[in-house]
Amino acid sequence: MLDAGRVAHVAVHDEAGQPYVVPVAHARDGDVVLFHGSTGSRLFRALAEGAPTCLTVTLLDGLVLARSLFESSMHYRSAMVLGSAAPLEDDEKVRALEKLSEHLMPGRSADARGPNRKELAATLVLALPLTEWSVKVSAGPPDDAAEDLDRPVWAGVVPLVTTAGTPVAAPDLRGGPPVPAYVMTWQHG
Amino acid sequence: MLDAGRVAHVAVHDEAGQPYVVPVAHARDGDVVLFHGSTGSRLFRALAEGAPTCLTVTLLDGLVLARSLFESSMHYRSAMVLGSAAPLEDDEKVRALEKLSEHLMPGRSADARGPNRKELAATLVLALPLTEWSVKVSAGPPDDAAEDLDRPVWAGVVPLVTTAGTPVAAPDLRGGPPVPAYVMTWQHG
Repeated sequence: MLDAGRVAHVAVHDEAGQPYVVPVAHARDGDVVLFHGSTGSRLFRALAEGAPTCLTVTLLDGLVLARSLFESSMHYRSAMVLGSAAPLEDDEKVRALEKLSEHLMPGRSADARGPNRKELAATLVLALPLTEWSVKVSAGPPDDAAEDLDRPVWAGVVPLVTTAGTPVAAPDLRGGPPVPAYVMTWQHG
Repeated sequence: MLDAGRVAHVAVHDEAGQPYVVPVAHARDGDVVLFHGSTGSRLFRALAEGAPTCLTVTLLDGLVLARSLFESSMHYRSAMVLGSAAPLEDDEKVRALEKLSEHLMPGRSADARGPNRKELAATLVLALPLTEWSVKVSAGPPDDAAEDLDRPVWAGVVPLVTTAGTPVAAPDLRGGPPVPAYVMTWQHG
């Protein structure tokens, strides 16, 4: 699920106990989850200092239309990872940024320029160990009670599919390079 | 953004300060965000008792392929709501459940059977006031540095689109009712 998810949500709370949930780009690397943020962000600095956190990835696969509202729901896959993250340094950080890029667009990191010293200094890359985690999956047809089955209404599942639309070239693109194969064949989740 | 998002992520932390982030179905209703869960869930009971929370909705609109990894990113819209939620009772609860259904599948709540007393008792519906919130939007073409523009590689944005696939009828569907128009015309986000 971590590999299939496109965006993760990470929580951290401040001294007053107020939680914050922020979307992050993530990637699994063996037995850690990587994610990154700006060194300018107070929340990311707290995470880098080891604040307890939770990272959740959810894939919404479909809408379940049951005969009753109570049994109507969503098909989803969700993974929740608990723990504390640690910041990566130097070479580890460069490799992690490539992993994060490859997670969303396999093939891209070979084409794009890697980070320079200044860019690396502005980026926090955090690794959250996969030691405490849980997964939830909701799948299958609507689970209506027997007394609802005669209700004269359609019931079933509407699958949700995310696809890549037509790529939009940067207005300042020079020399007319073709759209790469990894863009044309992209699919995820 | 709250209206366009399909799933929200809600955080709450336990006595030890460990945060948890869970996906929920949500809907905006005027100046509150509604979401629901099971009365059997410890996290939802903590939320119903007014634990400080954060609800975040993120829409992932596209992948930004810049010439550098540093400028490569995602197009997204994200709304973060902070505060404490309060549980709804009785008639308010029934109306809120209809709102939650209509959020994901407009038109459905008129067809599906509404909740009975037992179902209502098993469901917590929470309302989080829209008093403290922030939004973030990332849009536009890649923002590469001038010195990267001659890199001979395609750059641009790959839009991500979520659509409904072919509906799958429940195996125990009786009497052959047609797929409703609201399913066939569904689009969201």
